[in-house]
Amino acid sequence: MLILITSGGTTENIDQVRGITNFATGNLGKLIAERFLMANHDVILLTGRGAVLPEPHPKLTILPISDVADLLAATAKWTPEADVFIHSMAVSDYTPVYMTDFETVAASSDLEEFLSKSNTEDKIASRSDYQVLFLKKTPKVIASIKKHNPDIILFGFKLLVDVSKEHLISVARSALTQNQADYVLANDLTDITEITHHGLLVSQDAIIEAHTKLEIADLIVKKSEETYDQHHTRHNR
Amino acid sequence: MLILITSGGTTENIDQVRGITNFATGNLGKLIAERFLMANHDVILLTGRGAVLPEPHPKLTILPISDVADLLAATAKWTPEADVFIHSMAVSDYTPVYMTDFETVAASSDLEEFLSKSNTEDKIASRSDYQVLFLKKTPKVIASIKKHNPDIILFGFKLLVDVSKEHLISVARSALTQNQADYVLANDLTDITEITHHGLLVSQDAIIEAHTKLEIADLIVKKSEETYDQHHTRHNR
Repeated sequence: MLILITSGGTTENIDQVRGITNFATGNLGKLIAERFLMANHDVILLTGRGAVLPEPHPKLTILPISDVADLLAATAKWTPEADVFIHSMAVSDYTPVYMTDFETVAASSDLEEFLSKSNTEDKIASRSDYQVLFLKKTPKVIASIKKHNPDIILFGFKLLVDVSKEHLISVARSALTQNQADYVLANDLTDITEITHHGLLVSQDAIIEAHTKLEIADLIVKKSEETYDQHHTRHNR
Repeated sequence: MLILITSGGTTENIDQVRGITNFATGNLGKLIAERFLMANHDVILLTGRGAVLPEPHPKLTILPISDVADLLAATAKWTPEADVFIHSMAVSDYTPVYMTDFETVAASSDLEEFLSKSNTEDKIASRSDYQVLFLKKTPKVIASIKKHNPDIILFGFKLLVDVSKEHLISVARSALTQNQADYVLANDLTDITEITHHGLLVSQDAIIEAHTKLEIADLIVKKSEETYDQHHTRHNR
């Protein structure tokens, strides 16, 4: 199979010297890539800046991704060719539109005006004590995957912080439906340590629990292979 | 001499999953550290996340820095003991105060109210198409250095983007006075490539030009040693 994996985090530039980064080590995406390579599959890894990377491997292609626009272009290109898509990347929900002094914003009679502005300077300077940054929602990458390839086996990820197990499962189930995902790996930042990583692999009819990154990676490899075989058998019946 | 060097960039958290990062590879700070080590000096490197690091060395201590608050604490601790301070880190000018929906901000009759709010959630969620982030100025780390140690030899850095040489020098001269710096290394992002790095080492009475990171590093080592010797001779006269 050809496996498309995203890892690390995206960074949306504010100007040329700073940006909004989604924190992500890339550890889980790296491990998932390694386990698929060990199972003799081809892997394309789309990865954010600063993420940890697997060692070079003849069946591995690594493509660097900076922001959501990059990621959209890369997924549009590679999704039609892939059998499995594993979206473990921390993707920015919002991207900067315009940044200016607080005083300028406070003096405006209609804040909508700032939503259509953009900064022309390369490095936004300010002497003001406060600044205001306007941001707009980014397109949801995962929602576009099945449109590019209805047959792809799609794994989404949901990372929440300090919520109940029930809430985590309910959010994962909504994500399944909303993104036409086959599986959603739901996890809580407070349940992730250096050595443990508690995760729930949620599908329409089951929830499977994993306790380490390695268990999560192996579970994803196993479910990908099983689901691929099911599709394949069905198609050839 | 004991040399305190900052490198890389700071990251100011918005919430637990994202933050505003100042882009910086840490390449120049790493090289400056290496050249001081080769000249047999002791080096403490305060370095931002993701920055490149020198190889371990018996005279090198590396201390990780995440945000401006971290950097202020570390410089307050180490500046009194150091002979030279080289501030090559890209430090965040502003830090997040509060983030909320655009609609909430647009409906407010007094935007000042948001400057005293803070987010209580671990991961700020939003369904709104637009969000607004209020930021406040961070304390200037470099302005505090001579207060901690009036005798320290202080190198500041000014990175601008696509400005004239005259403007670069004038900004560097202001920084010299404002921060009581002995030297300011002024550079323009558009004059930095993989192999060249154009920089001007500006002091009250001279401007010295360098063309690569190595030239900049060696110039800083030389000027540090010369200035230290001058101070020392004067004190013992």
